[in-house]
Amino acid sequence: MKNIKLIIEYDGTNYHGWQSQINAITIQDVISCAINKLTGEECNLIGSSRTDVGVHALGQVANFMTASNIPGDKFSYALNNILPKDVVIKKSEEVAQNFHSRYSSLGKKYKYLILNTPQPTALFINRALRYKNNLNIENMKDAANFLIGTHDYSAFKSTGSSVKSSVRTVTGVSLEKTDEMIEFQITGNGFLYNMVRIIVGTLLDVGHGKIKAEDIKDIIQSKERNRAGKTAVACGLYLVEVFY
Amino acid sequence: MKNIKLIIEYDGTNYHGWQSQINAITIQDVISCAINKLTGEECNLIGSSRTDVGVHALGQVANFMTASNIPGDKFSYALNNILPKDVVIKKSEEVAQNFHSRYSSLGKKYKYLILNTPQPTALFINRALRYKNNLNIENMKDAANFLIGTHDYSAFKSTGSSVKSSVRTVTGVSLEKTDEMIEFQITGNGFLYNMVRIIVGTLLDVGHGKIKAEDIKDIIQSKERNRAGKTAVACGLYLVEVFY
Repeated sequence: MKNIKLIIEYDGTNYHGWQSQINAITIQDVISCAINKLTGEECNLIGSSRTDVGVHALGQVANFMTASNIPGDKFSYALNNILPKDVVIKKSEEVAQNFHSRYSSLGKKYKYLILNTPQPTALFINRALRYKNNLNIENMKDAANFLIGTHDYSAFKSTGSSVKSSVRTVTGVSLEKTDEMIEFQITGNGFLYNMVRIIVGTLLDVGHGKIKAEDIKDIIQSKERNRAGKTAVACGLYLVEVFY
Repeated sequence: MKNIKLIIEYDGTNYHGWQSQINAITIQDVISCAINKLTGEECNLIGSSRTDVGVHALGQVANFMTASNIPGDKFSYALNNILPKDVVIKKSEEVAQNFHSRYSSLGKKYKYLILNTPQPTALFINRALRYKNNLNIENMKDAANFLIGTHDYSAFKSTGSSVKSSVRTVTGVSLEKTDEMIEFQITGNGFLYNMVRIIVGTLLDVGHGKIKAEDIKDIIQSKERNRAGKTAVACGLYLVEVFY
């Protein structure tokens, strides 16, 4: 048996998230189905991250075992011929037997796009959050810097997750505005359920003047979800890269 | 009568170009129809540029005369409530009676996106040309610089246009690669039919080594369409801004 690693780009708009579920087609489903058509085998596809409905990926990672004699690097081409156009295998390769796309992960990078414009957008429908009001970018940058470090991020976690510990390490954040587009990037060893989207919602509160940049410290320490901002819409979020 | 200027963003994917035509819905049609619903008047909407099927715009400009008492700056909001989501009025304002979005134009800026990656793309379907093979970006930059100046650009013109002169002035070009995305920008006082797309097709020939950067000079001087490259696909082209 060979262990095949996939790097996957997708537009999450048309799917019910990554994770397979009853009564809905997910990204895991369409890729598993494509692998089954190619190899004839039942496929247990392990994803690094259970991205939510509407969340996009530039570099989701998944792996599966196969007895097929297709060379590892040929899966990307073969699967792209079968998959819908909004799900693309960017790279495939054979990896060590013990590689597990979730448990072997050292960390992840996400980005979040905010289109800061009074008018709606034609070209970023389902691809960015649109925010009408003026935002103080410098204050948002200051606030973002308070997120770096090893903390219990319970205040930035939606209920519904069953993780044992809410301690995570955020190693890097950046926030840049180009014309009307604000791009927020965050890197860390792992993220709680909805953590990036709640962080973005909280940064919007900072940018809008509802809370101060320094308040981020108190919010983290409080561990209270209701102290942080709203969960920003899914469509602005992109899983950029998974590190191993 | 008031003269109203609109700045328009659109995703050209779902429309048969800008210009109204029989048996097809165009962007001019949907905006004219929306103005008619708002004002009750027949609308003669003048666009600055007849973008082709599949071409996008960040800043198309159009104007129309109206007896409506709606303030000029309120048209954007009112029209956006009527228009399909992939056509957005970014700004509206009352302008001088003699303003004509096509004849008053001093120049235009276009961009063209090339996704230079061996795999297909999930997130740039209909938004960029995808080019599989390696491209020599430095050679493409050199070639692009030969386009600047005032020349007869007949070699970069598709048949079917009825303009009197093929002399145009290109004032600026830039070509930048970020990760897998190449963004080409070009500014000039006007562009011939398919000129930007033929220029991009020719730059791809340079990047791929089929022709040399210096050959651009000869191609311009030849005035022969068959010396230049293929017309690059429409979906990579964006009308960025019209100057007045």
